[in-house]
Formats: sequence, structure tokens, C-alpha cells
Amino acid sequence: MGPVRSLRRSSPITIVVGVVLCVVILVFLLSPSSADSTGSPLRKASVASNPLSPPTSPFRKQSEKPNAKRVPPPVVHYHMNNLTSTSDPVANRETILILTPLARFYQEYWDNLLRLSYPHELITLAFIIPKNREGNAATTALQEQITKTQKSGPEKNRFASIIIERQDFDPPLSSQSETERHKMENQKARRAAMSRARNSLLFTTLGPSTSWVLWLDSDIIESPPTLIQDLAAHDKPIIVPNCFQKYIDPKTKQPAERPYDFNSWQDSDHARKLGEGMGADDILLEGYAQMATYRTLMAYLAEDNGDPKQEVPLDGVGGTALLVKAEVHRDGAMFPPFPFYHLIETEGFAKMARRLGWSATGLPNYKVYHYNE
Amino acid sequence: MGPVRSLRRSSPITIVVGVVLCVVILVFLLSPSSADSTGSPLRKASVASNPLSPPTSPFRKQSEKPNAKRVPPPVVHYHMNNLTSTSDPVANRETILILTPLARFYQEYWDNLLRLSYPHELITLAFIIPKNREGNAATTALQEQITKTQKSGPEKNRFASIIIERQDFDPPLSSQSETERHKMENQKARRAAMSRARNSLLFTTLGPSTSWVLWLDSDIIESPPTLIQDLAAHDKPIIVPNCFQKYIDPKTKQPAERPYDFNSWQDSDHARKLGEGMGADDILLEGYAQMATYRTLMAYLAEDNGDPKQEVPLDGVGGTALLVKAEVHRDGAMFPPFPFYHLIETEGFAKMARRLGWSATGLPNYKVYHYNE
Repeated sequence: MGPVRSLRRSSPITIVVGVVLCVVILVFLLSPSSADSTGSPLRKASVASNPLSPPTSPFRKQSEKPNAKRVPPPVVHYHMNNLTSTSDPVANRETILILTPLARFYQEYWDNLLRLSYPHELITLAFIIPKNREGNAATTALQEQITKTQKSGPEKNRFASIIIERQDFDPPLSSQSETERHKMENQKARRAAMSRARNSLLFTTLGPSTSWVLWLDSDIIESPPTLIQDLAAHDKPIIVPNCFQKYIDPKTKQPAERPYDFNSWQDSDHARKLGEGMGADDILLEGYAQMATYRTLMAYLAEDNGDPKQEVPLDGVGGTALLVKAEVHRDGAMFPPFPFYHLIETEGFAKMARRLGWSATGLPNYKVYHYNE
Repeated sequence: MGPVRSLRRSSPITIVVGVVLCVVILVFLLSPSSADSTGSPLRKASVASNPLSPPTSPFRKQSEKPNAKRVPPPVVHYHMNNLTSTSDPVANRETILILTPLARFYQEYWDNLLRLSYPHELITLAFIIPKNREGNAATTALQEQITKTQKSGPEKNRFASIIIERQDFDPPLSSQSETERHKMENQKARRAAMSRARNSLLFTTLGPSTSWVLWLDSDIIESPPTLIQDLAAHDKPIIVPNCFQKYIDPKTKQPAERPYDFNSWQDSDHARKLGEGMGADDILLEGYAQMATYRTLMAYLAEDNGDPKQEVPLDGVGGTALLVKAEVHRDGAMFPPFPFYHLIETEGFAKMARRLGWSATGLPNYKVYHYNE
């Protein structure tokens, strides 16, 4: 296992930890409707009484009127016993948190997000962006689009809230070309760093009223607009579509598509035995000729005109697009940056969820598309 | 390993998952001071523009005035690059989240909490309480004290915010006598359920501006008022005081004290070998004669008049009182409900943190005291 370097050496904890966060919360105010705009002191008190966003943010002094008597603390109840994650999340008004580790900003990613037909007022977006030059550029581009969408765009496009977290400089996550990034020896360090970024984002944005978490990579530029509803309809704890990439076939000069994400798979005896023979800190990687796993890859299970609703059970999942019931994460399922049963990041997540009693499902014929560099 | 039952059988995932959460956020309004109470529309807009608590809570319509023009979305920046967790958290105004899984309410616990000299406006309290009869009683008792403290008590006693989460019925966590609870065969199921409760609480309350997390069990009824400052002063990622219990010595009829929490330890070769010989789903437990581990227990390292600042490195930690830098959790360190290197709950947490590069420290001569049933 020469190329598989030690986690400790290749991914110092200082890479992602000591995260420098810059959180931007954008809340938009709808234009007042007559029903809402009573302007009564009671209503104002109720709104003003709840400045904590998130609940653990620093305390802020408030006041209603100059020289007013102290206002007793309003008790805001979140009746979370109604919190569900069902096959009909729109009807049940279930909130969803879309989490995106963002290294580069693609306009097509944002445009695709805007096209999602899930009610935007039920969607919170949260991004984690490296604190480097490329991350700064991505943040600027993202903020520009946020401003456009939330301020001047159609009201139906606006999201409930948007959070941007800036992490400290994080080389493996970015500033690598696609070729460089996919080299086997770079994968472990890169995916350990990505795990820490995902965990930071998850632990700080998941709320007690979140029903669903959609992990959506920043290079997913095309999905069905009904992505959330379609995935949720299967009512599975963890569900993952098939991630493909469009390209122009060099021979025919015609548009074509090919599998892109190889992290969604069904385990094989061969891979299990490979793992057993490995050192405790070694990891199994998918898609490398020098480490044939003989796993069944969902990437290759897609069929022409196959049923998009067809389900397959999965042991490992990719994270390019991944819908998770929030209770799976609340139970403790995170993205191990360390080898967990010789798996890390999203594949380790699937294994950890399994240890918690949750299984993963794949949809081989339901596709999302990855950017083509 | 007869008594160690399978996690799957003894702790069905349905016990804690499908958590029924009831979140109560109490925010108190300070009496207005002339500096704060400009009452300007701008200030009101700024306060009212931020109704999301937590950020992922459902969207709420708002308005400033009847028939007013739409107010553009204010951008609230949380400059988190200043987020620190230092040895002088008071001077650096670092926020702390005190997390308590609450099965029973002890008045002494609350009184001790009130005595903490760490600025209360930097403290957020969050509780997770089982959704059963005993949990209902505990919630009622807790809410009564919250109301008293936050509404009518001295302003300096009031906390920044308080969150109460109600989880679904959870037998192993409660309704067990101390004797019953400590039986070895009940430990695995009980601690797996406790892990899930801790994870639920952690994942839903940790915010991007949290510097520290203090885990404090609901039966810790006495600690130095400077607990937070004292522990933080060591500037360690994970630090744990020694948990003792006061009692009346039956022979001398005099007050005495004895070690209570045996989960803080330094590993032994013997225990490591025990683990190697175990099945994948078996766990090592501390404090049982039938499973002697020969670990060095911090409980027994306390010395009469010993230096309270004396540090010892630890491999396992207890959770009765446990201070953690928030970045350790954000990195992914949680409480494994499944055997993780044959460890679960807080002991598994220490091991997981170690895999993430963070080490644990114990203070054998710095004591907190457990309730005596």
C-alpha cells in the first residue's frame, strides 16, 4: 500500500481545524401583506425577542422603546414533535438544508439551484469555502448571485436563509486540477480534508427543525428541477442519484455522457478481503486500476431508458448529490476523516450510518450531471 | 463476553431516533439603556431582519410597517475569523454551550449552574430530555427554574439563551435506579442510547460562533464557580475534572468523599489485548471486577491537598463534566453509539478525537461532585 500515506503525515490536523469561519446570514424581508403588517407592539416584541441566529450566537442587548419597562422574556416554542421527513415533504412543509463545500463557483451550479422546484422558503443554503485566493474569488462570485437572487430576483426564487462559512487555508481541497486531484496518492489527504470541511459545515448548520440534508457539490451543474421531491419520494434514510458527466464524443462529435462518481457501490468479498489484509490506517479507494475492488459500481448500473425510480442497495455512497434524513446525521453519522473500516469521507459516512442502523439506497437511472473541466 | 449483548438487539435504533424534539428558546430582553434604545427604524430593521433561530428554522414573513415598501435583505456578517478558544475566554468574550442530557431535575444542579462565575451572557444552555413521564416532570421542574432565573432573577444570572429538546421515549436513559443502571449487562444499551442523545443535542445546537462546549451531566450538583475559567486556563482541546461523590461515612458518621466516574483513564496493554481478543461488536467497560482492564484510572490519582492544576494525559474520558474546544466537535468528534475500537459513548469520543488528532487531559485533583441517590 505504498501510495496510501498515513493520515497523520499527509493531512495535518491544522489543515482544516482552527477553521476560520466567516458566516454570512442573509435574511430577506417579504413585502408586507395586510395580514402580516399589524405593526402591533406585541408582534414587534415577538420578532425582536428572537435575535439569536444561530441560538449559540453571542448575546445581544435589545430594547423596544426608550425608557420602556423591561419586557419579560417571550418564550418561543418550536414544537418539534411535528418534525417529519416523509415521502411528501412539500405537503408536509419539511425544511431542507442544502450543504455545499465550495471550491470554485460555477454559474451553472447556481442556475440549477434556482431551478429547483422545491419551495425555496423551505430551503436553507450553507456553504463552506476555503480561506485562500480561489476561495475569495468563489465567495465574491457567490455573494454577487446571492444578492441578485435574494434582493432583486423574483420572490419565489429566494431562499429562507443562506450561510457562508470560510475555513482556513486548505490546500488539498482546492488549487488542484482535476487530473492532479484524482491521482490515487492525493486522494486520501484530499478526502480527509474534505471530510473535515463537511463535518464543520454539518455540525454548525444543522438545526433542530431540519428535516432533510441535501449534500450537493459545487460542480453539480444539472439536475431535474424536482430533484428533492423525487429523491424524498423514495422515503429512504440515505439516497443517492447517479452522477454523470456530459461531453462531446471526439469520434462522433455528438453530445454524449459518461459515469463520473464511482463512490456509490455495493461491496464485494474481494474488497472486504483487501481491507482485512490492510494496515489499520490504509484505505480502500474506488476507480483505480492498481487497486481493483470488484465492487458493483452504481455508475455502471445505469441503463438506456432505465426506470429512474429503480432502487439498488448501496454500501458506499458518493457525495456529489446525496439526500439524507436529518435524523441520520443527528444520530451521529458524520464523514470520517480517518480510515473507518478502511473507508473515509462519504464512503465512510455510509458505513458509519450502517453501524447506526441506517442503510443507503442508490438510483442508477436517476441522473445529475457534473461540470466538465 | 456473555453479558455484553449485541448493540442491534439491545438498543433498537428507534429508541432515540425519530427524535421528538421540542425546542424552547428563551431570550430575555434587558431593560433598555439610553445607549441602546435609539428606537430608530434602522436598528429595528437590523433586529427584525434576523428571525432565524436557529438558521435552519422555518422561514417567517416579517414586516416593518403597514404598507411599507419592501425592505432589502440586510446582510448580517458573523466575522468568525475572530472565533477563538483560548486560555482566557472571559477576556476574549468566548461563547460556551453547556450541554446536558437531563433525565431527572435536581435543584442542586441548577443552583450550581447559577453560581458559575463565567459571564452568563456568554453561556447558552441546551438540554435533551426523554419524552416519557419522568422526562415530562423534569421538563416542568426545569422550566420553572428557567422562568424564575430568566424573568425575575438578577440580570447577571440570566443566560444568553436556553434550548430544550425533547427526545422520543428512551427507556435505557432513565427510569432505572442507580444500582440497576450500573449493572454491566445494562451498560452497553444504556450508553448507546446516551450516545445518541448526546449526538442529537450536539448536532442541533453547535453554532458557527461557539468557542467551547461544556458537557455537564444533570446529576453534577457541585463544582467550583470558576469551573469554566479553570478548565479553559489549561488551553487543552479536551479536559476533564475528577468526578467524586460526597457521602456520610457509616463508621465515623463524618462527611467523606469517594471517586464516582471511572471513565477517565490511561490505557493499559492488558486492556488493549482484551480488545484484540474481542468480537467486533463487543465493548470494554471500566469498573467491573469481571472485566479487569488494569487501566490507570484518574479516579484513583487524586491526592489529599494535591495540586488542582496537575495534568495527566488520558485515553478515555467521562462525560459527567467535560470541556471541549468546539473545533474538536466541528472536526467530527461525536459519541459513537456503536463499538469504536471496542469503546462507546464518552470513552469512544476520546478515541475518535484522538483519531482526529486531538488529545485528552485530566485533572485528578480538580473535583466536581455527583449527586448521591
